[in-house]
Amino acid sequence: MKKILNRPADYVDETLDGLVAAHSDQLRRLGEDGRVVARSRGAIPGKVGIVTGGGSGHLPVFLGYVGEGLLDACAVGNVFAGPRVSDCQEAMRAADGGAGVLQLYGNYGGDRMNFEMAREMLELEGMQVASVRVADDVASAPVAERQKRRGVAGMVFAFKVAGAMAAAGGSLAEVTKVAEKAALACRSIGVALTPCVIPESGKASFEIAADEVEFGMGIHGEPGIWRGKLKTADALTDEMLERLLPECNLGHGDRVAVLVNSLGATPHEELYIMYRRIAQTLADKGITPVLPLVGRYATSMEMAGASLTLMPVDAELEALLAAPANCPFWKV
Amino acid sequence: MKKILNRPADYVDETLDGLVAAHSDQLRRLGEDGRVVARSRGAIPGKVGIVTGGGSGHLPVFLGYVGEGLLDACAVGNVFAGPRVSDCQEAMRAADGGAGVLQLYGNYGGDRMNFEMAREMLELEGMQVASVRVADDVASAPVAERQKRRGVAGMVFAFKVAGAMAAAGGSLAEVTKVAEKAALACRSIGVALTPCVIPESGKASFEIAADEVEFGMGIHGEPGIWRGKLKTADALTDEMLERLLPECNLGHGDRVAVLVNSLGATPHEELYIMYRRIAQTLADKGITPVLPLVGRYATSMEMAGASLTLMPVDAELEALLAAPANCPFWKV
Repeated sequence: MKKILNRPADYVDETLDGLVAAHSDQLRRLGEDGRVVARSRGAIPGKVGIVTGGGSGHLPVFLGYVGEGLLDACAVGNVFAGPRVSDCQEAMRAADGGAGVLQLYGNYGGDRMNFEMAREMLELEGMQVASVRVADDVASAPVAERQKRRGVAGMVFAFKVAGAMAAAGGSLAEVTKVAEKAALACRSIGVALTPCVIPESGKASFEIAADEVEFGMGIHGEPGIWRGKLKTADALTDEMLERLLPECNLGHGDRVAVLVNSLGATPHEELYIMYRRIAQTLADKGITPVLPLVGRYATSMEMAGASLTLMPVDAELEALLAAPANCPFWKV
Repeated sequence: MKKILNRPADYVDETLDGLVAAHSDQLRRLGEDGRVVARSRGAIPGKVGIVTGGGSGHLPVFLGYVGEGLLDACAVGNVFAGPRVSDCQEAMRAADGGAGVLQLYGNYGGDRMNFEMAREMLELEGMQVASVRVADDVASAPVAERQKRRGVAGMVFAFKVAGAMAAAGGSLAEVTKVAEKAALACRSIGVALTPCVIPESGKASFEIAADEVEFGMGIHGEPGIWRGKLKTADALTDEMLERLLPECNLGHGDRVAVLVNSLGATPHEELYIMYRRIAQTLADKGITPVLPLVGRYATSMEMAGASLTLMPVDAELEALLAAPANCPFWKV
């Protein structure tokens, strides 16, 4: 394991220490174990609160999107492990400005179970709660079983859209509606070139040969669609587009939000080589990419690889994506 | 070589294609070979132009800092190779709004030779030109031979400070003065855990054992101060601070800009573990970190490792760092 860390058991808490120290104007830690990250300014009276949560090791996902025009609080688990129920509750309380709270998170069994338990308990206390799960990874289940798909980088679009609607004064029903609209619209697929190492176990998340790529792999190393010799950037990008476009229902004159995301080690240079091909292909079809994001938005620590997310947009989604936002990792 | 690319010979140009496609509202390519990146809006009449240049493989450095409140144009070389003289000239012409042009770049022999030739030729045409080289890497030469030091991540602070002064209407003398002030004030040191691979050669930039770190290594794999077993994050961070602080002349009540920079593969989690230690150490000394930057600001593609830059600030430098700026990789 070649990482810059101290005791592996302290990896998450020391990361949070540094993050909150660097961004104390925006973020603070809450909860008895400090595993809730919330906005420093506290809940905003009358604004719908948005909470997320999930395992660590994916920065900026999840807690990095707590900020202005984005999320209000996040429950933080260990690396690749869901947050505790008590921290989900604490995050919801921190986000609650009296107008209700939306739970907006990735579709993983453990996260779902804990957020649902937290929801039940807080509803008993009278909190108005809604839930939207993002399930955008097309490689993880066929479209007929969409509810089984995992949530990956598409949640960044859902965070942005819901956060903008909440900041604009939307009701819980309105914020939930646009979050669902974004969650339903976005589609993602990833390719992995190398694993990452889980600090506590010291083990790689999977094994792969020096000349191989795994197409469709999940962000925790979940098996993909095929594994084989590494192809060119254009061949990989074309195949990613071929997996996404048929589900996107895009035609000439349509507009689509594009996110080319590094899983960690893959540098900006390679992401832009991919984006070049995506822009060419979309242009050939008369489709306009809007507000493209190219960078590290949802990672697996130092994993090499990239994911592509497409979200067809109407005027409402496009305006919400373009609305101002400010978190430690992203400023719009 | 495990990278997402097409022909290695096309790595730089395809990266530029994608970058300009993704950020066409901000950036355009110029020059007969398209190896100059400049602001889409063109030179701003009456504003001092700021140009930089250098090898590729370091995104966001160099061209990523072309933008509002930052740089006006950049000459782009091949991976780890300086830009051509003709591209330096083209960048200077693209940046020239009639108020003079500052060349602001890292202290490497090839870059210096080419920028000096470009300067001589454009001065003959009547352009007002000034030059500042950033030489912040304390590992590359002792303080008595500062002019031999290489330029690394500290140039991000110099870009920001000079760009803000130019945007505020500063004269060429004023912009040059604050660029020099930042360049003189900043100090950096890096540690490398893994090499990166040069696309055209397919070779690693250096070799290192699976349990070793090189302390003080340059961003192209230039030899550092020592190589040995990987230490804890706190031990590495302490040694980095011990190398930087004696040259920074910081005392109780002083303020310092801090940049914890990933060289590529090292994830945000590890950078924040380092920042946590830096913030604790500075607090113990009564020194206040201002506007800390934690992320990827000057990389070597997929190299694992991190650098730390400190720049003691007075009120002028701090205000210039905090002034608005907007480029594809950074928004202030």
